[in-house]
Amino acid sequence: MAKDRHAGLGVPPQAEDFSAWYNELVVKAELADRAPIRGAMVIRPYGYRIWELLQAELDRRFKDTGHLNAYFPLLIPMSYLQREAEHVEGFSPELAVVTHAGGKELEEPLVVRPTSETVIGDMMSRWISSYRDLPMLLNQWANVVRWELRPRLFLRTTEFLWQEGHTAHADEDDARAETLRMLGVYAEVARDVAAMPVIEGEKTAGERFPGAVATYTIEAMMRDGRALQSGTSHYLGTNFAKGFDITFQDADGQLQYCHTTSWGVSTRMIGAVIMAHGDDAGLVLPPRLAPHQVVIVPIGHKEADVRAAAHRLADECRRLGVRAHVDERDASPGFKFNDWELKGVPLRVELGPRDLATGTAVLVQRVEGEGKENVTLSELAAAIPARLDRYHDQLIARASRFRDERRAKVDEWSEFVRQVAIGFADALHCGRPDCEDDIKAETTATPRCIPPDLPDENGMCIRCDQPSAYGRRVVFGRAY
Amino acid sequence: MAKDRHAGLGVPPQAEDFSAWYNELVVKAELADRAPIRGAMVIRPYGYRIWELLQAELDRRFKDTGHLNAYFPLLIPMSYLQREAEHVEGFSPELAVVTHAGGKELEEPLVVRPTSETVIGDMMSRWISSYRDLPMLLNQWANVVRWELRPRLFLRTTEFLWQEGHTAHADEDDARAETLRMLGVYAEVARDVAAMPVIEGEKTAGERFPGAVATYTIEAMMRDGRALQSGTSHYLGTNFAKGFDITFQDADGQLQYCHTTSWGVSTRMIGAVIMAHGDDAGLVLPPRLAPHQVVIVPIGHKEADVRAAAHRLADECRRLGVRAHVDERDASPGFKFNDWELKGVPLRVELGPRDLATGTAVLVQRVEGEGKENVTLSELAAAIPARLDRYHDQLIARASRFRDERRAKVDEWSEFVRQVAIGFADALHCGRPDCEDDIKAETTATPRCIPPDLPDENGMCIRCDQPSAYGRRVVFGRAY
Repeated sequence: MAKDRHAGLGVPPQAEDFSAWYNELVVKAELADRAPIRGAMVIRPYGYRIWELLQAELDRRFKDTGHLNAYFPLLIPMSYLQREAEHVEGFSPELAVVTHAGGKELEEPLVVRPTSETVIGDMMSRWISSYRDLPMLLNQWANVVRWELRPRLFLRTTEFLWQEGHTAHADEDDARAETLRMLGVYAEVARDVAAMPVIEGEKTAGERFPGAVATYTIEAMMRDGRALQSGTSHYLGTNFAKGFDITFQDADGQLQYCHTTSWGVSTRMIGAVIMAHGDDAGLVLPPRLAPHQVVIVPIGHKEADVRAAAHRLADECRRLGVRAHVDERDASPGFKFNDWELKGVPLRVELGPRDLATGTAVLVQRVEGEGKENVTLSELAAAIPARLDRYHDQLIARASRFRDERRAKVDEWSEFVRQVAIGFADALHCGRPDCEDDIKAETTATPRCIPPDLPDENGMCIRCDQPSAYGRRVVFGRAY
Repeated sequence: MAKDRHAGLGVPPQAEDFSAWYNELVVKAELADRAPIRGAMVIRPYGYRIWELLQAELDRRFKDTGHLNAYFPLLIPMSYLQREAEHVEGFSPELAVVTHAGGKELEEPLVVRPTSETVIGDMMSRWISSYRDLPMLLNQWANVVRWELRPRLFLRTTEFLWQEGHTAHADEDDARAETLRMLGVYAEVARDVAAMPVIEGEKTAGERFPGAVATYTIEAMMRDGRALQSGTSHYLGTNFAKGFDITFQDADGQLQYCHTTSWGVSTRMIGAVIMAHGDDAGLVLPPRLAPHQVVIVPIGHKEADVRAAAHRLADECRRLGVRAHVDERDASPGFKFNDWELKGVPLRVELGPRDLATGTAVLVQRVEGEGKENVTLSELAAAIPARLDRYHDQLIARASRFRDERRAKVDEWSEFVRQVAIGFADALHCGRPDCEDDIKAETTATPRCIPPDLPDENGMCIRCDQPSAYGRRVVFGRAY
């Protein structure tokens, strides 16, 4: 069986070449495909459905927290980016530029948005005049373009899909509370929807969003021990408010600058899900993001009774809100089992004429299950929703165990080097960008974040022996 | 009251200047705003919510008819467009072109997609190899860019949002059936969701999509008598299959070209809804697309009891699936009534302390209602869903009456000229492009479509007295 996989649908083992495992899996599981333009991606239906399910979960939470969706232009005048110095410096190397349109050269080149703080800031300045207009809580679902030098499907592509929240507030406290609230929404979706435990914390200065006062992140651990930044939330202070004149009259009639935030999650999250859960047999999809939660494979499917029973079961599942699929392809059961394993379907039901005669079916869970279980057919559908919840819990427990085994407090440089080679190291750091650079040069590890829930602690920097900064440990890891 | 409107929130009367009515309304009702880039649009939350509701209705029907969503790249190599001669000729004048990216000049310029037949055709050619892969039924929700010379919010903007369906089939019959099936979905959504009666039919050759063999359209009548093309569906024959080598092996092992289709509905539909239903007081939103279906205005809202009752009513409505909103702004009831009229909310509930004491409320329907109705508060929420359905029926009946009054069969040129000045003329036509051009030059009217449900009829062309084509009448009108 293992041989079959490698020859046909299979992917290289993770331990042999994690990168090759990922690259082949994304294409073979039909999540995405390379596009004719260098670095661009085509998201295929199976991958796009995961995105739609993730979108729905995020969007509902954005609306529940008072945010409204809107849509802003794709093309932004180059001069807009230049109004915030760090912002333009950070994004300039990655811009795609429209110089001609409608058969003519444009007077001012337009950049394809790499992010929308500038154009949304400009519109907010027109819409906000009084403290009564605040807070203004907006979100946009959109595509953005950043010209990546080393593209990789879902992780770094020249174009990607995301949501970008943009909010304006009367004061710093309110804006900072929003920044952390949305970080909390991201962490909740990562845990409760994607079954990924994440570490929440602030980024160090060197890893901040260009133009932000503070950047917060959720960091997940992939199954090769590397970190993947899966969502970020930025407190922008008054930097963009000053660049775009986003002001309001307060209750005393005084003109004040707004404090703004922005926050985003992208199709990169799909890459995180693949690498946080997948194994040598392929994808392992968390049930709340799985396009098919249960696939029913009729055995000897040309027998009308078996097919009819399979569809009855699928309909029962659907009535309970379960995404069920009957695989009626003209292929062998073995091919189908491997295919749905590769595609990470949580539960598989095998149903043949003998099962039907005894009123049973065979149930197989993709991972963490008990092999082939014989279950009573009449009771099966009703049991599925709880099975899927239990599976979700098993996946997050498994990912948490994996991460905890590969995260350690370290106080010696040699330990640090060993630790970041396999996972995350919690270490004291001096906070100097030069020292971050040295660490990166030697180990390729970077500070992932400063989690506020780590205890107060001071001492000497893990690398340079100068006094530590931040008042607590920093999580280091090699990152995607 | 009328005066208030004109001074503050109001819009110019339709009869005075329909264009000014539209332009002011779109901005004052906070549907959209002009963007800093010429011809681009910002869709504000109130307008975007209409789009989300329309998207959900379309998307559900696409999925029910077996289509899968996917996502294809924004930037397309210029050479791709050139592989279909009519296609590149049709779109060239409207293209926006990326010439620089990542700090360098690109070897080949990339166009920002005006539509995606080319790049999707290229991917289909990689994914399709056998008749077993057919039909391939895809849809994409995306932004597209067409450099419009005379931009207008929602109707013609340099960037707009849409869905584009792209399908590949084994033969012409199957592809033509798909083309008409999706036209039917569009007509159904126009009628059952947007409360707009539409005329379905084929376009004449001069109005075809560049590269199509046949283009079908749904045409709605606006309240100034003009036509608005609200959705199109194209049978592309093997034109794109030949350009992009979309081939398959049939059951006999023979290599064949696929027959492809494409079909789209865009944010333009919001413009159609505004102009098909709106009046001098503002928007009239069909209830299935209204962000708020019922707005409850507490009178003397600082009294806790009234506010509490308003929220109880709103919660009851929401439990019944009704989108209800309580307006607690610090403003006068009169201001709020005008504002929600301008914003086209289907039902308004006024609730004051005296109403509360008698257990009643005042219900006002935006149009076609019976003025202020006194209703029993305890029975109000339960009655709302049926009221909204009745209101939908009233709106479509009203729009149908309006359209029928302004559509006529004409057989004399002088009649034709009078008829297209106020609405649609069903006339016999020779089918010659030259003659279409003459008609347009004299009247600004164009052939909107050839409805298949008109009776068989032949005779002389309304304009040039040559024998008529098509075997039936053509609907002419002045179009947006």
